[in-house]
Amino acid sequence: MSSLRYVALFVLLSLSAGQFLPAQTQNLAERLGYPANAKLLIIHADDLGLAHSVDQASFAALDQRAVSSASIMVPCPWLSEVAAYAQTHPDADLGLHLTLTSEWKTYRWGPVASKDQVRGLLDPMGYLWPDVPPVVQNASPEEVEREIRAQVDAALRAGIKPTHLDSHMGTLFASPAFFAAYVKVAREYGVPFFAPRIPNGPKDLLDLAEKNGFLLDGVAMAGEGVKPEGWPAFYAGILRTLKPGVTEMIVHLGHDDAELQAIAVEHPAYGSAWRQRDFDVMTSPEFKKALEENHIILIGWKDLKKLL
Amino acid sequence: MSSLRYVALFVLLSLSAGQFLPAQTQNLAERLGYPANAKLLIIHADDLGLAHSVDQASFAALDQRAVSSASIMVPCPWLSEVAAYAQTHPDADLGLHLTLTSEWKTYRWGPVASKDQVRGLLDPMGYLWPDVPPVVQNASPEEVEREIRAQVDAALRAGIKPTHLDSHMGTLFASPAFFAAYVKVAREYGVPFFAPRIPNGPKDLLDLAEKNGFLLDGVAMAGEGVKPEGWPAFYAGILRTLKPGVTEMIVHLGHDDAELQAIAVEHPAYGSAWRQRDFDVMTSPEFKKALEENHIILIGWKDLKKLL
Repeated sequence: MSSLRYVALFVLLSLSAGQFLPAQTQNLAERLGYPANAKLLIIHADDLGLAHSVDQASFAALDQRAVSSASIMVPCPWLSEVAAYAQTHPDADLGLHLTLTSEWKTYRWGPVASKDQVRGLLDPMGYLWPDVPPVVQNASPEEVEREIRAQVDAALRAGIKPTHLDSHMGTLFASPAFFAAYVKVAREYGVPFFAPRIPNGPKDLLDLAEKNGFLLDGVAMAGEGVKPEGWPAFYAGILRTLKPGVTEMIVHLGHDDAELQAIAVEHPAYGSAWRQRDFDVMTSPEFKKALEENHIILIGWKDLKKLL
Repeated sequence: MSSLRYVALFVLLSLSAGQFLPAQTQNLAERLGYPANAKLLIIHADDLGLAHSVDQASFAALDQRAVSSASIMVPCPWLSEVAAYAQTHPDADLGLHLTLTSEWKTYRWGPVASKDQVRGLLDPMGYLWPDVPPVVQNASPEEVEREIRAQVDAALRAGIKPTHLDSHMGTLFASPAFFAAYVKVAREYGVPFFAPRIPNGPKDLLDLAEKNGFLLDGVAMAGEGVKPEGWPAFYAGILRTLKPGVTEMIVHLGHDDAELQAIAVEHPAYGSAWRQRDFDVMTSPEFKKALEENHIILIGWKDLKKLL
């Protein structure tokens, strides 16, 4: 149910019963049936389909419930491996990591749409651009909409029933027109989309997101400031200081093996050892214990989907 | 120089000098400047670009001169890794393994051309077909020509200077019209193309190939009849019984690792262990010694290119 319709329903109910809180004062935790001060966490693995190494680590983490959700890069070569997993694991919480960039040196992919129809998304080799700025400079909102629609259609054809949409490297947050295309496609396919509440964020975009769904209360992710030896402490700190409401913690899982080392060559950030560290912390007994000690409830996008 | 022009030159020379053998009686070994009974061998690694595992094994074999030539699958994700190798190894004998199929289960690729322009090459997911018969059934010769031309153009854009063309899974040999497109594109780009002399083969195709280049005298490749433990003996037998002229021995190199095991899942033929066996035999001292003992001269497609 959309937020707009949700508000309308509450207005109607409060008129008749006279005792309902207005919808806008209910936070996301309450809307999900939890107390207002509940700490709800989505532990979300990005980049499924990128590499076999990433898939294996992510499937293992999903199977152990070390992560509660994940999203899939449809243009990447290993989509079929993920689609087979999705079919044998219908309860897995799997969304689409809409992908408009191809950022590694040795290993590249192109669009799902026909190249002629998305020329502005392509680098001179015909792959997706390696970074966000050239996408913003060269691609039209129409091309972006065409490509993300093609990615959703391809996932459906592959038998994947996406629980949500989000955006690889945040490309869809890099332009208001791209963001509008993202919201439009999510609405049409009836799936929630990732958008966090950002203090002092762009009001028009936040309003658009809230009108068409909801805003997550927070988002957390390891950045380049975290030193390898500080990995467990970084994540422990996130759990210890987690605020009430719904937070998404984004992790990048993989094994530090030959395939992933070659993909991430000369790129330690979000590289092979990085993804192994994320996997090691997420699947550690210490992390599991810290979740319990901090009274954190894991949820998935399937729970949030019910709010639409 | 084309065979036709080659014949014309010889006719001219024999008219003036009166002592040259007609061109058609010179075999390929003689045309390369060797005695007619010389045993010339191209040891050729297929499928570069398919996977990092394949690339690493093939680069190692090229570096050790354990193989004398190789060819690249342009639509595959690891093309950039191969292009970087080609640029740092300008003497490497690298052709294009023109690819019209995407045959593995977990790991797929699409065309290089815009999908709208090669619809007949695509399976329902938008990937290249998984096998040769649906390509023959669905793709027009025009689509085939468009795609292989796009593959050559993409390789050139990536900085690869192909020494030759050949055909992944032999798709371009599966229809006379496909074969004609292959010959046409090779001629236009001025590169030789793989075509073996086949006893009792289709005369019109063999004539077309010979008119536009030359026919190799033989081709050898491990098939499913070879048992794993019989691998060294199989290749030793090829060397021992090698006929005079130019033979291409096609090998499939790779390491038996997690990436390649996942790509070749449920497909032992040309799979991960298979490719490791090929690598192990090709790089073995026993194989090197057998080449010497049998007086076999390794050549590459660069040598053959000089005949055009």
